[in-house]
Amino acid sequence: MAFDLGAHLVRLGILSSTSDHTSVVSINLFVALLCTCIIIGHLLEENRWMNESITALVIGLCTGVVILLTTKGKSSHILVFSEDLFFIYLLPPIIFNAGFQVKKKQFFRNFMTIILFGAVGTLISFSIISLGAVEFFRRMDIGSLDIGDFLAIGAIFSATDSVCTLQVLNQDETPLLYSLVFGEGVVNDATSVVLFNAIQNFDVGHIDAIIVLKFVGNFFYLFFSSTFLGAFTGLLSAYIIKKLYFGRHSTDREVALMMLMAYLSYMLAELLDLSGILTVFFCGIVMSHYTWHNVTESSRVTTKHAFATLSFISEIFLFLYVGMDALDIEKWKFVSDSPGKSIGVSSILLGLVLVGRAAFVFPLSFLSNLTKKSPDEKISFKKQITIWWAGLMRGAVSIALAYNQFTRSGHTQLRGNAMMITSTITVVLFSTVVFGMMTKPLIRVLLPPGAKHYGSMSSEPSTPKSLLAALLPNGQESEVEAGGQIERPSSLRMLLSKPTHTVHYYWRKFDDSFMRPVFGGRGFVPFVPGSPTEQSHHGLE
Amino acid sequence: MAFDLGAHLVRLGILSSTSDHTSVVSINLFVALLCTCIIIGHLLEENRWMNESITALVIGLCTGVVILLTTKGKSSHILVFSEDLFFIYLLPPIIFNAGFQVKKKQFFRNFMTIILFGAVGTLISFSIISLGAVEFFRRMDIGSLDIGDFLAIGAIFSATDSVCTLQVLNQDETPLLYSLVFGEGVVNDATSVVLFNAIQNFDVGHIDAIIVLKFVGNFFYLFFSSTFLGAFTGLLSAYIIKKLYFGRHSTDREVALMMLMAYLSYMLAELLDLSGILTVFFCGIVMSHYTWHNVTESSRVTTKHAFATLSFISEIFLFLYVGMDALDIEKWKFVSDSPGKSIGVSSILLGLVLVGRAAFVFPLSFLSNLTKKSPDEKISFKKQITIWWAGLMRGAVSIALAYNQFTRSGHTQLRGNAMMITSTITVVLFSTVVFGMMTKPLIRVLLPPGAKHYGSMSSEPSTPKSLLAALLPNGQESEVEAGGQIERPSSLRMLLSKPTHTVHYYWRKFDDSFMRPVFGGRGFVPFVPGSPTEQSHHGLE
Repeated sequence: MAFDLGAHLVRLGILSSTSDHTSVVSINLFVALLCTCIIIGHLLEENRWMNESITALVIGLCTGVVILLTTKGKSSHILVFSEDLFFIYLLPPIIFNAGFQVKKKQFFRNFMTIILFGAVGTLISFSIISLGAVEFFRRMDIGSLDIGDFLAIGAIFSATDSVCTLQVLNQDETPLLYSLVFGEGVVNDATSVVLFNAIQNFDVGHIDAIIVLKFVGNFFYLFFSSTFLGAFTGLLSAYIIKKLYFGRHSTDREVALMMLMAYLSYMLAELLDLSGILTVFFCGIVMSHYTWHNVTESSRVTTKHAFATLSFISEIFLFLYVGMDALDIEKWKFVSDSPGKSIGVSSILLGLVLVGRAAFVFPLSFLSNLTKKSPDEKISFKKQITIWWAGLMRGAVSIALAYNQFTRSGHTQLRGNAMMITSTITVVLFSTVVFGMMTKPLIRVLLPPGAKHYGSMSSEPSTPKSLLAALLPNGQESEVEAGGQIERPSSLRMLLSKPTHTVHYYWRKFDDSFMRPVFGGRGFVPFVPGSPTEQSHHGLE
Repeated sequence: MAFDLGAHLVRLGILSSTSDHTSVVSINLFVALLCTCIIIGHLLEENRWMNESITALVIGLCTGVVILLTTKGKSSHILVFSEDLFFIYLLPPIIFNAGFQVKKKQFFRNFMTIILFGAVGTLISFSIISLGAVEFFRRMDIGSLDIGDFLAIGAIFSATDSVCTLQVLNQDETPLLYSLVFGEGVVNDATSVVLFNAIQNFDVGHIDAIIVLKFVGNFFYLFFSSTFLGAFTGLLSAYIIKKLYFGRHSTDREVALMMLMAYLSYMLAELLDLSGILTVFFCGIVMSHYTWHNVTESSRVTTKHAFATLSFISEIFLFLYVGMDALDIEKWKFVSDSPGKSIGVSSILLGLVLVGRAAFVFPLSFLSNLTKKSPDEKISFKKQITIWWAGLMRGAVSIALAYNQFTRSGHTQLRGNAMMITSTITVVLFSTVVFGMMTKPLIRVLLPPGAKHYGSMSSEPSTPKSLLAALLPNGQESEVEAGGQIERPSSLRMLLSKPTHTVHYYWRKFDDSFMRPVFGGRGFVPFVPGSPTEQSHHGLE
């Protein structure tokens, strides 16, 4: 039923104001460009500088130029960034897939460091960028920005782009770095939500102890409730699929249920004003630990690749979109009066991003190293540089935040706001393309692939003995000492590293004796008849 | 990054007028309902009356009631049917998957019958329903309807719901019926497009030979160009994946490319005012014949199940949506004045649908039987009844058409238009629930599963000898006769059935010697190292 959709739908357009001929054209354009990006990305696979996201960004920019030229400089609907599209449709599959495919052992081993980087680090970065912005921008004549705007600038530019990290770092080659930088990006989100709510709701003129306390409380509430919601949804899906024995009837139902429940967790979090990113990330982790083992063999292959594919398409789409959006003529009108000032603002922001990140990566890495026993587990200086560098990219999250803050009703026409929007786009483009292109070579130089640059990956939980060693008073250690070559931990190290190992040990015990029997998981799945690995000739004639 | 999406996005809302808090709420509601439908559908699997679509429809209706009661009768945005959503997002995956999983041999064997049913049958049904509507409705006082409206009613109610057919008929149990009824539904689409364009563009007052000729020409143009576009896109994807050897780098890229190119074919058809349904259906057939064999093992499993899952979710969503939409209060306002008349109109329409379908299924089946040699291949009377019955359901396509015709700007408030909209909804609900529920038991009674009720499925192409037998003049038959027990075909049978077999034979030859070497396909795929069947413990820890 084709009809002239365009003409008719405008008349109907009750829910669907986007549904004119333009939307059919733009969908065609986007899908065709996505195909192009995939093919070019494939051809450039061996290239050491490029990656898929930079390709998409460049193609998006080129398309933007072409559209600008063909429409003779008039702004087109295709070019406008939609926060909605980003947060409701593109982000969830990307983050869910990251949680689904993350190496859980590596992630939880570095959990404390990740939290440290994501929460404390983001706060440090936020403060430095905000203070720097106040310091520099007050002297320049760039229009009216109040204290709230400066704080918002701090939040916007301390939001690491976790999507870009996924593209630049390789989980298999550099697992420690990957889990640190990506994990930081996820936790970063909760921090940013709190920061933004704080900036928009609290009276930022009067910061006292109670507000700070509220702030901290808010962060913990957000972090724990988001995590809980994600874990709960994941466990619910595992329980339903295990209990109702879905594979018996249809493998498609299992896959559909996993997809829908993951998405539901994200949307529920959005509804409850929690951090959807945190929620869907933990939902992904729980689903890969339990649900995934409860489904049939073909569902496992399907979910693994289908989630990765959806995430892949969303990522490419996102970068394409950011690239095309960057050339929306409206935004650049104000800037064209004073190009020098605009370049100045962007450069200052880039500098602040560099300094702000350095200001927490190196000190916090030092702190984190104090807690590690073996030199293998410590974050070497070279690795610190890589962490600093790999987290420098700013992406769609920053753009969405900037739109949120600087395009309030009526305010769009203000010079200061227009300047901030274009500067954000400039920083995002520059950091993604330049920093992004240099990351792969940088990693190759700093951490040559031959060297063993990450901690040992032994899967054994720490023995109860080392736990005892940490808990027993000095006089009673003899028995434990006799047990093996246990290095005496320093007191600080003991304090910080032992609880993690202990937690891990008890978690394993709890998982094996209670969680897996209830929710399924590896080794606890009933035999499903008729679910051997699919044959290639099966089903499709 | 949650923020208060709702509040902020309204301010931005350039592309996104749907993006307020309501949309987050309604997405949550829909996703939660989808999960519920899947679970309930699973529990009712063994039930002989219900199927997933009826469950979804009923749940949708119940939710509609709850929403009506909680909002105290005020219309809610959630309840409005969006043609856009239906044609751009829900329909393509369903039809593509149907083409992708269709039994190609069965489909092409019955190709002529399918075309006969889909084109001629739809025209017969259209004429009867239009004439009947003119006859009955002119006598009733139901507001101003012109000749164009009556013709539109004919088109609306002769559109078989192919989605519902997929749910009710089982491809494995009744392959002949499935391919006939579903194939008819797909071809039906091209006919409906032409009908609609004709009604809306031609001067329907003056129908002469030239207009009829134009009409027929239009149909053939639409049919062939849509098919060509679909086949072309499918072949292009096969060629790209084979040539660039995608599996080497990433299995996700293959899956993504297949998905995107299939969708691109549909959207291109929409853009060019062709029949997107026909295009994407043939794209699915070509992709399963060529592209699917060119990808890695895990991509095959993934695509097969991922496409089925997407289609499954879209179907459930669709029925849920139709169910919820049915209770939109606006539409029922006019009807409440004269409930008796409304019931009368709906009953007449239902009756016309029954008669209109009977008027072409039985005569055309008779015609089709004349062309078949063996009694096995003929459509028995019991099967004719099943075909008649299984195609009675009207679905979302009819609703979309009705909206298209009867809600033009300003005309929504007319009594006749409101009446037609509500009658369409009534017919759709009644036919889907009542006819749908009775189809499964009917098939069980008419065609008991033990009996061999469909034609032999031998995969051998007819030998060149039988071709010769058909082409050679009588005197020269001796050689062929000696070759085997070839029954002398009657001249009509020969005329109609032989070309199909010949075409099939030449097609196989052409396929093996030219198409497969170029585009890949079973047996013509180079060995891809490292693509064994996935292990369940691989990749996900």
